[in-house]
Amino acid sequence: MRMRLFTIIFLLTFSPLLNATEWRGTGDLGVVVERADGSLQVIETTGNTILGRIEGLGDLSHASAVFSRDERFAYLFGRDGGLTKVDILQRKVAARVVQSGNSIGGAISQDGRLVAVSNYEPGGVRIFDAVSLEMVADIPATYGDGKQSKVVGLVDAPGNRFVFSLWDAGEIWMVDMSDQAKPVVRKFMDIGLQPYDALITPDGRYYIAGLYGEDGLALLDLWNPDKGPRRILADYGKGEQKLPVYKMPHLEGWAIAGKRLFIPAVGQHQVLVVDTDSWQEVGRLDVHGQPVFVMARPDGRQVWVNFAFPNNDTLQIIDTQSLELITTLKPGKGVLHMEFEPRGEEVWVSVRDIDRLQVYDTDTFSRRADWPVLKPSGIFLTSRAHQIGL
Amino acid sequence: MRMRLFTIIFLLTFSPLLNATEWRGTGDLGVVVERADGSLQVIETTGNTILGRIEGLGDLSHASAVFSRDERFAYLFGRDGGLTKVDILQRKVAARVVQSGNSIGGAISQDGRLVAVSNYEPGGVRIFDAVSLEMVADIPATYGDGKQSKVVGLVDAPGNRFVFSLWDAGEIWMVDMSDQAKPVVRKFMDIGLQPYDALITPDGRYYIAGLYGEDGLALLDLWNPDKGPRRILADYGKGEQKLPVYKMPHLEGWAIAGKRLFIPAVGQHQVLVVDTDSWQEVGRLDVHGQPVFVMARPDGRQVWVNFAFPNNDTLQIIDTQSLELITTLKPGKGVLHMEFEPRGEEVWVSVRDIDRLQVYDTDTFSRRADWPVLKPSGIFLTSRAHQIGL
Repeated sequence: MRMRLFTIIFLLTFSPLLNATEWRGTGDLGVVVERADGSLQVIETTGNTILGRIEGLGDLSHASAVFSRDERFAYLFGRDGGLTKVDILQRKVAARVVQSGNSIGGAISQDGRLVAVSNYEPGGVRIFDAVSLEMVADIPATYGDGKQSKVVGLVDAPGNRFVFSLWDAGEIWMVDMSDQAKPVVRKFMDIGLQPYDALITPDGRYYIAGLYGEDGLALLDLWNPDKGPRRILADYGKGEQKLPVYKMPHLEGWAIAGKRLFIPAVGQHQVLVVDTDSWQEVGRLDVHGQPVFVMARPDGRQVWVNFAFPNNDTLQIIDTQSLELITTLKPGKGVLHMEFEPRGEEVWVSVRDIDRLQVYDTDTFSRRADWPVLKPSGIFLTSRAHQIGL
Repeated sequence: MRMRLFTIIFLLTFSPLLNATEWRGTGDLGVVVERADGSLQVIETTGNTILGRIEGLGDLSHASAVFSRDERFAYLFGRDGGLTKVDILQRKVAARVVQSGNSIGGAISQDGRLVAVSNYEPGGVRIFDAVSLEMVADIPATYGDGKQSKVVGLVDAPGNRFVFSLWDAGEIWMVDMSDQAKPVVRKFMDIGLQPYDALITPDGRYYIAGLYGEDGLALLDLWNPDKGPRRILADYGKGEQKLPVYKMPHLEGWAIAGKRLFIPAVGQHQVLVVDTDSWQEVGRLDVHGQPVFVMARPDGRQVWVNFAFPNNDTLQIIDTQSLELITTLKPGKGVLHMEFEPRGEEVWVSVRDIDRLQVYDTDTFSRRADWPVLKPSGIFLTSRAHQIGL
C-alpha cells in the first residue's frame, strides 16, 4: 500500500509538469528531412532550436511535405510511395500507407480535407482523406491506347482542385474535388514534350510546366482555362545550354517578387528575369554556378540562389530592385535547400555534406544558429499550411 | 483515507482525458471581439465552431488584435489603452497592462519579439516586450514647439520597423527597432493634413496614409525612403463627396488583387480601382452603399464589400477580372467585419445587430455556420501571425 501510494503521489506531483510542456503553439514549427536515415528533425523558429526526431519514415530521398490546416500534422511524400502523417506536436507517426511503388510529391487541398500523391509507378494520382489516410479517389494517368503516364508537378489550386502534368503523355490535368464522390477531370492535351516539373503562382492563378523534351514552358491560366495552355519563353530549356546540366532546376523554387519572376537558367550560370505581364524575358543575371533553387524572401526584396555541383557550397543573394548581387555566403559543401521564416527575417539552410542545419539573418547575413543534422535536405515550415500551392 | 483514495483514483482516471484535449494545433484558431461585453470568443475554422470565451478585457470598441509568431497568443489593443496578452490555447489572460488613456491599434514586429501600441492620450507609441509586456521603448509624438500628436495608422514593416502617422503634426515616422536599446526614429514632414489611418501593402513596401484634412493620399516607398512621401490620387477624399459620410472607410480593408488596388470611395456608393504601377485610378464600380471594408479573397479573384448605415445589412462580391458583380448577400443588419480563412475557401462575418457570427463558402456562397455571439465586431485569425503588416 505504501508503494502504491508513493506511485500515485509521484504521478500527481509530476503530471502537471508533463502537462505544462504540452501547451504549445504550432505556428513556429517545421520539419527537416534527414534523407539518408528516413527520419525527420522537428524544429522551432522562435528560439531556433531542434525539438526532437521522428524515425521510421522509409525512403526520403526527394521527399517533400505539406501541412494540415491546423499546423499540427505534416504529410510526408516519400520516394518509395510511402505517405506518412506525422504528428509534429507529439513527435510521432500518426498514420502511414505505402500507396504506390514510386512517387514524386503531393499536395493538400484548399480546405485541408484531402491529400493527393503523384505517382511514377503505377502512373497516376491517388487522393486520400487527410484525417484517416483512407483512399478517396484513384485517378490513373491513362492516355493514348491505354498506356499509363508518370505524373509530375502536382499542386493544389483554389476551388479544391489539384493540377498535375503527365510526363509521357504531354498533358496537363485538372481535377475538381468539390464533390469527393465525383472527381471531375479536365484534360489539356498537346502541352509540349515531357513536362518534368511544374509550379503554381502564389495566388493560384498560373500553372507553369517545364518541358524536358523541347524548349519553352507551358502556361495554363486557371482563371481562364477555356483558353487552354500556351507556350512561353520559347528560348528556355535544353536547347540553349552551353554547359552540361548537372541538375535540372526545381520549378518549385521559382521566385516571384512584385511583377518579376526570377528563374534558374538551365545549364548556365545565370538567373533569368521574366516580366509576369508579358511573360517575356527582360534580363539575365550572372551568378556563381548553375542555379538550383531561386527563392524570394517573403517581402520580395531579395532572391536567394543555391547551385549545382561543383558550386554547391555557396549561396548568393540578389537585390530584386537594383538586380545587383548583395552578398555571397559559403555555408559549406552541399547546400541543398533553403526555407524562409514566414515574415522573412531569417532563413534556414540545409548543408548536406557537412551535416549541418544553419539559420541566417536575412538583413545582416550573420549566422544565428548552426545545428548538427544527418544529411539534411528539404526544410518545411508549418506556415506553408496557410499558403495556396504549398 | 477511502475518500482521499477515491479522489486520487478519480484524478488518475480523468487526467489523461484532460491531457488529450491539450494536444492541439493553433493554425486554425481565431478570436472574435464581443465589443459590448469586453470579451473574446475563441473560434476554430476546421469544424467552424466556437471553442470558448475569454472575459475581462476592458473597453473593446474599435479593438484589434495581432498574434505571436507561434500562433498561440493574441495581443489585443483596447480603446481604453489596455494591452492584453491572451493565451488562446488555454483560453485565459496571460498578461495585461493599461499602458495609456486612449489607444487606437497596434502591431507586432517582424521577429515577433516586440508589440507596439499607438496612443491618442498621451500621443505617441509605446513598445513592449512580447513575452512579459514590460515596456521597452516610449516614443512620444512630439512636434512643433513641444506639442503631442495623436498617433494613427501604426503597422509593422520588414527590418523590425514600425511605421505610423501623426494626426496633428501631418508627419509619418519610421522607427527601426533592430537594436531594442536604441530605437532609431526617422521623420517625414509635411505629408498632408490630418492623416487619419494608413495601410501597408502585403509585401511591406508601400505605406499609404489617408488624409482627413485634404484630398489625396500620402504614399511612402519604404524601399526608397530617401525619395520621401508623395501624393497620389489627388481626387480621393472629402472634397468630392456627394453624400454625407456615415463612416470613414477603414484603410486596412483595402484590397490588392494582382496589380489592382480596390478602395472604398469616401461618401459615395462606389469602389475605386487603382493601378499599382502608376497609382492612378483606372475605374469605378457602382455598389450598394458607402463601402467600409473592401477585402480581397486570398487568391485575389474576388473582393468582398460591406457598407455603412443604412446599407449595413448587405455584402457584395465583385469579380476582380471582369469587374462585374458576382452576387449580393444579406447576412442581416450590422455587417461589421469579414475575415477570410488563409487559403480563402471560407469567410467569417460579424453581424452585430442580430448577434450572429456567420461562415460562408466563397465558391458557392452557401452559409456553412451561424453562431450566436454577443455584438460581434472584429474577427482575427491566427494566420495573420505569418503575414507582414497584420
